[in-house]
Amino acid sequence: MIRVSAIYRPATKFDHDYYVNSHMKLVSDRVGDALIKFEVDKGVAGAAPGSPAPFIAIGHLYFNSVPEFAQAFGQHAAEIMADVPNFTDAQPEIQISEIIAG
Amino acid sequence: MIRVSAIYRPATKFDHDYYVNSHMKLVSDRVGDALIKFEVDKGVAGAAPGSPAPFIAIGHLYFNSVPEFAQAFGQHAAEIMADVPNFTDAQPEIQISEIIAG
Repeated sequence: MIRVSAIYRPATKFDHDYYVNSHMKLVSDRVGDALIKFEVDKGVAGAAPGSPAPFIAIGHLYFNSVPEFAQAFGQHAAEIMADVPNFTDAQPEIQISEIIAG
Repeated sequence: MIRVSAIYRPATKFDHDYYVNSHMKLVSDRVGDALIKFEVDKGVAGAAPGSPAPFIAIGHLYFNSVPEFAQAFGQHAAEIMADVPNFTDAQPEIQISEIIAG
């Protein structure tokens, strides 16, 4: 299984409610059955006591394989990325990983 | 539920086998029953075709709450962090997140 993570650094604006209820709904509607599940993380802290989280939010999408992700997501990527300014002024870093343990 | 992620940028050295089979075993042995599960991601790609993954590896630890994590991990943090040079010359960024969807 692969995890595709959209990783957001702290920004002047980040609407977690919109991210969960509108953006992720758009993503899951568009990619359809290829999406095994999704999760959303809200950053709360860093390692040192009292330190801020390095990332304000991380969205995780799970697929069987990179080709399945590419096929399902690619055709909708422009529409999905165009929705990002509706909840944040940050640009996500996109990480595609193979889950090798867990 | 919270997710504690150790996020590793590309480094000159990263031994994924050691990370999964020795380091994560050390972590799970030390934190004990407070650890719900762990997962390990191996970076394979970025968003643009042919681009490298922004992160070489990400380890995820799941706990019920930040206090449970702090109590279970804190007393072993020095020992666990001292093991990091055995598999990489990178220093992880530590992200503590609340899982708000998924």
